[in-house]
Order: sequence, then structure tokens, then C-alpha cells
Amino acid sequence: MPPNIVLFMTDQLRRDALGCYGNEICRTPNLDKLAQEGTRFDQAYAVSPVCSPSRASLMSGRYPHNHGVMINTHIAPTWNRGLPADSPTFSRQLKDAGYVLDYAGKWHVNEDLGPEDFGFDRHGLSGNARRSVNMRKRVDPMKLYEPGTESVIEFERGRMVVAGTSTGTVSEHPTSQVTDQGIQMLRERATGDDPFFLRIDVVAPHFANRVPEPYASMYDPASIPPWPNFDETFEDKPAGHLRKHQEWHLEDKDWAWWQQVIAKYYGDVTLIDDCVGRVLDAIRECGIEDGTIVVFSTDHGDAAGSHKHFEKSGTMYDEVFRIPMLAKVPGQDARVVPEFVRLMDLMPTFVEWGDAKMPHDLDGRSLAPLIYDDVPADWPDSVYCESHGEVWGYSSQRMVRTDRWKYVYCPHDLDELYDLDADPAEMSNLINDPAHRDILQQMKARLIGWNDATGDMFQWMWVQWNFPEPVSPYPGPSS
Amino acid sequence: MPPNIVLFMTDQLRRDALGCYGNEICRTPNLDKLAQEGTRFDQAYAVSPVCSPSRASLMSGRYPHNHGVMINTHIAPTWNRGLPADSPTFSRQLKDAGYVLDYAGKWHVNEDLGPEDFGFDRHGLSGNARRSVNMRKRVDPMKLYEPGTESVIEFERGRMVVAGTSTGTVSEHPTSQVTDQGIQMLRERATGDDPFFLRIDVVAPHFANRVPEPYASMYDPASIPPWPNFDETFEDKPAGHLRKHQEWHLEDKDWAWWQQVIAKYYGDVTLIDDCVGRVLDAIRECGIEDGTIVVFSTDHGDAAGSHKHFEKSGTMYDEVFRIPMLAKVPGQDARVVPEFVRLMDLMPTFVEWGDAKMPHDLDGRSLAPLIYDDVPADWPDSVYCESHGEVWGYSSQRMVRTDRWKYVYCPHDLDELYDLDADPAEMSNLINDPAHRDILQQMKARLIGWNDATGDMFQWMWVQWNFPEPVSPYPGPSS
Repeated sequence: MPPNIVLFMTDQLRRDALGCYGNEICRTPNLDKLAQEGTRFDQAYAVSPVCSPSRASLMSGRYPHNHGVMINTHIAPTWNRGLPADSPTFSRQLKDAGYVLDYAGKWHVNEDLGPEDFGFDRHGLSGNARRSVNMRKRVDPMKLYEPGTESVIEFERGRMVVAGTSTGTVSEHPTSQVTDQGIQMLRERATGDDPFFLRIDVVAPHFANRVPEPYASMYDPASIPPWPNFDETFEDKPAGHLRKHQEWHLEDKDWAWWQQVIAKYYGDVTLIDDCVGRVLDAIRECGIEDGTIVVFSTDHGDAAGSHKHFEKSGTMYDEVFRIPMLAKVPGQDARVVPEFVRLMDLMPTFVEWGDAKMPHDLDGRSLAPLIYDDVPADWPDSVYCESHGEVWGYSSQRMVRTDRWKYVYCPHDLDELYDLDADPAEMSNLINDPAHRDILQQMKARLIGWNDATGDMFQWMWVQWNFPEPVSPYPGPSS
Repeated sequence: MPPNIVLFMTDQLRRDALGCYGNEICRTPNLDKLAQEGTRFDQAYAVSPVCSPSRASLMSGRYPHNHGVMINTHIAPTWNRGLPADSPTFSRQLKDAGYVLDYAGKWHVNEDLGPEDFGFDRHGLSGNARRSVNMRKRVDPMKLYEPGTESVIEFERGRMVVAGTSTGTVSEHPTSQVTDQGIQMLRERATGDDPFFLRIDVVAPHFANRVPEPYASMYDPASIPPWPNFDETFEDKPAGHLRKHQEWHLEDKDWAWWQQVIAKYYGDVTLIDDCVGRVLDAIRECGIEDGTIVVFSTDHGDAAGSHKHFEKSGTMYDEVFRIPMLAKVPGQDARVVPEFVRLMDLMPTFVEWGDAKMPHDLDGRSLAPLIYDDVPADWPDSVYCESHGEVWGYSSQRMVRTDRWKYVYCPHDLDELYDLDADPAEMSNLINDPAHRDILQQMKARLIGWNDATGDMFQWMWVQWNFPEPVSPYPGPSS
């Protein structure tokens, strides 16, 4: 029988918030253990910085420019209802192969259709999770927090709490409730005859970080050192970067303010880690550990003060795109995968694991060979990501990253080039540095090569004419 | 019987290229006569700076953000096939009311569907006009021009002729051929029992201006004075403006270069004017002048050197958005309409003239009362336009303009504010001028008011929170 698959998804989780990715403050023992015993993908990327496109890519194994969900589905719904009903999805393929599929928690892939329309058998918490952005009730935000614990951003015509201590309990927290729902589903399916796929998808640690005790006080804000890229000056950066900093009214937010926010964020992360531990315990208790693959990831990262930004904010920095991704396959040796992989590569991976039929025309590629330490010769040595904008409207950006270099194409603003060896924090934009003209041309050739190989939108002649000859992302058989 | 309606559309025609809009060099006697005898709309606007969205708005009477065609349909076709089949259109309404409808020339509204799918009875030149951008055959561009007459832009990996003398004759020119087709249709319908609607849609004076003699040599380049905004410095302008100037490789194009281009552009315009004259002659010759309304306009304007830009280039300047619009209604007094109107307002106008059923949920409003000098009390004293980007990808901009002020919302770059009384050429961006803080707030309130009134995409709380309280575009009954 094909294996059971349990996918635990989070929302807006920074890779560097986990111990297994180097964090020395935030405690994530269950995830660290998963990483130690399984596969830790060291260079995993979300192809989109926002929920709906990234989640639709996870479902479909296609880039947003190929599945058509460019921005969050609750923005501009006229032309943006969500993943088309006839899109390939791992869930439809697994269903057709005999799986039973359960979904607990956040969806955010289509305004009209739910997981059941793409092969899932049921969707826990679907009543208010299908169309809404998250599952938190919309009430006066100040009533949700212990007075005096709130970190607040003031706008001209509104105020927003971004972090604080919840007035509720751990068991009332949405992360706990979605996990409870998932564990209940798991226990029901564990005794069945069919292999099951279970997705548990929590709306955390996405702001607002409304964190219950004891997590809310778990981390001393003063102990949190500044991000290496907190000291952003916006010099030689795209104009949009400073603009978003200003529109979020972050000019007066010093590191002490961010420490309060991040302490709560870390509390949310440790709460997630405990929930992951509960799921792993349930798998063991059900006696299905040997037949169950566990995967953990997130839809995208978070600025959380990096580059003095909040949220995603229209940048293509690693804090937003580089994500944690862990997989534990029973019987498989532990390893760290250095290759570039993408969240959407999980789609064909699930299909392969489930012995289901692989759809055509996918952008994603199965990660199974990487987990089994059998890296294909033509695995790309770069990764390509895209951004189409967000609540402030559309804004096209593309990024290609190799081990050392990152080039960001920002066709209506300033491009970016970073040397990630010398400048891993992406502080110094080398785009206009004559000393890097050659590497810039190489990276532009790679970017337009990805564009061409994946059918992206930069096809018009006078756009292409400003790029060098495209370089395919796929190494030839001789390489 | 309701009137016949003949709509003559052009592509990328600057308002100020016509004599009736103040041009003292380019000869347009037929259009000037039409303006003198009919209605000249002095403040007409295209709601989009590119073909497909603007043309879909003309068809549907809806803003692009409501009909869903954001950019040209040949770009990013995955999520951008064109106007939905179930969209309201003037043509479907007229068809249902008993009209016969003919279409000659450029369409560019849907990659899969043609005019016949929206109520037209036939589409002349549809064989290669439906899906393609224009009707010019794709051959070696250098073979199309008399050697030595070409104005060329050199890119890193290509070159483009933007203007030159055609090796062909006037009768071979696409503008002539589309007009011939339209006149043939008109003669066939003139003797019928049903009212007819005829659309003649020429792919000119859109670059490349491949102009046959005698038009090619009609204007002495040296006689053409520089645009009042040719001397653009890009200081205090959005970063995207300079970028597009550079990506078009216009840094070394002085006014002498542009004079060559504009002389050819003017030749194309006079060729159009002669074609309009031939259509008006045909109407007279058929004896249907008293029962036939004639409308002339364009889908959008053209930078053509203004602000040192080529094409549309991601700006919201008047050269691109403010368009010529003329209408001659038999028996109606000549007049100049100073109110703000939009190309898409023609949709409900045609429906009203055709005594057809008016669809619900239109953004456009019939212009008939303005032509009859009966301006509704709640006619807006401002106009709202939108831009979603183009071949370089998506980029959201919005513009609201009153008689005196223009505010451009460019959420990922720098906003713009112009005092059109003091600075009609839009040279001086006042966005950061403290002396204009109050008027800026008023214009921002108008912009977000239009956003709300038309269901545009800037609905998210922390976007709205940076705007003042919205001001409705529709004056109250007391005003």
C-alpha cells in the first residue's frame, strides 16, 4: 500500500525562526528532531510571496504565471477567483489513485471552490475557512489582547495591532484548534483500509501574533538580537521599498519595538512546534509511524523587521521567499538537501509517493530523488520566483538566485543584484556597479531563460531585446 | 426607425494631432469639419492606456477592473484571454434591438472570441485581425520602407523601425483597406430595411508609421516645434518613468530625431482624415446622411516624444489618456462639450440611440444628454483612469483629474500631483510640495472615492487607512 502522507503547513513562517535552521532563541524541539531524523531542505523557496498564488502552486505544481492566481484571491476578485477547477492538483491525482484525503484549516486558493472540489473528501473548519482570509473572528482587535501588551501601528485613518498577549487560552488558539481537528481526522483514518493524505494548515505565525500564555511570555524581547539587515537605509534600493516602509508607518519603529513583536512571533512558532509534536505523537499512538510520511513547510516567509519592512511589502528578499521545508520518509536516512527546491515541487512528490498518475505540463519536479540522494543530472542550479503585487495593486517582479548571486528584475523600478557570499543579508545592491557587469549579464540571461522555459510573460520583442541570449535553467546532459 | 451609427476608430491617436484640437501643422480638414458641424468633446479620456482594456471598456461600458481585461490580450494569455463572453456589450444590445452590425478592422478584445461572438453579424478582415495585434504582415521590416527613410531604435539584441516611408501605395495601406472594407459594408447595408451599426477600426497612427507617399513627405520635419514637455528631466518623477525612457533607448534621441518620426505620424493622421472623408462621402452618396450618426475617436493616445517617452510607457500623462472624440448627430446643433467623458461612455450612448435595452451595472453613462445640451446635475467634475502595466509586466496606477488638478496614485513608486492651470504640460510634480498638501488630500479623497464607487481593487484596510475619507465622484442633488 502507498504511504500515508501528513502535510503540516504554516502561514508566513521565517526559515530562520527554527532551531534546525540556525535560530538560537526560538525553541522548536519537535521540528528540530524531525529535521535531524529526516530530510532538511536547505535551499527551499516559495515561488510567490503571498498566500493564494503560493498555495495554488503547491496544489497544482505550477508557477503562478501558469495557474493564473497572481495575487490573493480576496483582492480584485473580478479577475482573480482562484485556482481553476480543471487545474491539475496532487489531491485529485491521489484521490483517483485510491487515497482518502482530509483537510484541516486554511485554504485560500479559490473564492468559490473548496478542497472538496479538488479531490479532498472533507475540509475541517471549512465553514469559515474556505473563503475568508483566516479563521479569526473579526471583532474589536483591542478586546482580543491583554491590555498593555499590544504592539500597534498607527495609520492616518486606522490602527492595527500586530502582536500581543491573547486573552484566550492555548486550547482556544486557532493553531491548536486546527491541529485538534487534524488529529481527530488522523485517528479516524488510521484504522481505515485506504492510504490517507492529511493536510493540517494553521494560520500562524502570520501577524497579528495574538499569542496565549505561556507562549506570550516565553521569550525575553531584550534577548533578541537585531536582524543582520534591520539597519536598512534604502539607498540604491528600488523606490518601492522605501515607499512600503513609509506606508506601513515604520519610520519610528526601533529595534526595541520589533523585539516585542518578534518575541510574540517566536511564541507563536513554539506553539506551532508543540502542535507538530502532538501530531507526531498521534501518528505514533496510532501505530502508523512506519507507513506515514510527514512533511512540514510554509507558504512563504515574513519580513518581520528585516530591511525595516513588515509583511511581504513587495521585496524579493530571502526572508520572504526562502522557506523551511522538512520531510520524514520512514526508512530513509537523514540528510540535508542543498539543491534549490520549491514548495510547488511537493505536488509531483506527493503524486509519486502515492503511486498516482503524474499530470503533464507541471513546473514542479518530484523531490523524491533528492530525498533518496539520487539527484538528477539536470536539476537546476538556480531558482526562479515571481511576485505580482498585493493589496496595493499589481507590481511585477521576478528573481533568479544561484548559490552566490541573486538578480531581481523589477521592470518598473530599479533592478537588484546581490552577492550572497559577501552580503548574505542583501544590504548592498550591486546593480549599478560596473565591476559586476559581467555577472549581471549572466544572471539576466538566466532570468530570461527561466522566463522562456516556463512560459512566463516577458515574451514581447522589445522586452526581450534588453536581455542577453537566454540561458536554460536545465543543465545539459554533458554537464 | 432608430438611426444608423457609424463609428470610426483609430489606434493611438494623440488628441493634439487634430486641427480641431489645436494642431496648426497636421491637416485634418474632414475631422475639423465634423467637429465644427457636430459635437466636440473637449475633455474625453480613455480609461486605459493600452488597446485591449480600452477596447473592452468601449464594448462593455465598464472599467477594466470590472470587465477584467487588464492588459493587452496577447500578453500573459494564461489569465488574460479577453472580454468574457457573457459581458454586456453595446453590440449585443443593438443586435437584440434589431440592428445589423458590421465590423471592419482591428478587434483586439479577446484571443478566442471575435466580434461575431458579441452580436456583430460579420467582421471584415477578420481572418488575420481577430487574434493578431494588427493586420500588418510580419515580414522583414527593412523591406517595407524606402531605404534611408527609417527612424530606428537600437536595442541590445534587436532593432525596431518606428517610422519611415512605405514602399507600398496608399491603396495598399491597411488604413485604406479597412476603410474600403467598411465603405463596402456601408453601401450594402444602406439599402436594407434595418438600422445598421458599422465600426471601422484602423490600426493607425499606431507606430510603426509606415506611411505611403504623398503622405510620407507631406510635412517638413523641421517645421514641427518641440512638444512643450519634450524637455523632461525625470526629476521628482516616479522611478519607472526614467527606466522606460532608458529601456526604449531614447537617451540619444534629440528633437531632430523625433521630428522625423512625428512628420510620418502626421502623415498617417492625414491619411486617416482622408479615409474619414471618404466614409462621409459614401454616407452622403447613399442618401442616408439624415438618418446616420457618425462618431470618431481612438482607443488611447501616444507619448510620441512627450516627456521623452515612446508609446505608453507606464505614465498617466494627458498625451496618453486624453483623446479626441467627435460625434455628429443629424439635426443636432454643433457644440463643444467641456464635461469629462470617457470612451466607454459611448457604450450606453449607442444603446440609448439604438432604443435598445440598457444593461445594469455599467460604469459608463450615456453621452446623449451632453450632446443635446442637457447635462445631468450629478455628472462628475472629475475623471478616473487606470493602468495595470503592459509588456514589462503588471504595474498598478490610478489617476483622478479635475479641471485644474491631476493626482496619480502609483502605489509601488512615487505619486504625482500636477497643477494643470500653471503647468498644463505636467512637468512639475508637486507631490512633495508642502504648499499643496491640502489639495493633495482633496485629490486623494476623490481618488479613493472613485475606487469605492466603481468597486476598484484598493479595498484592503491598511491601504485605505492611508487615504482621507472618500469623496464620491457624483455631486449630490444639492450641488
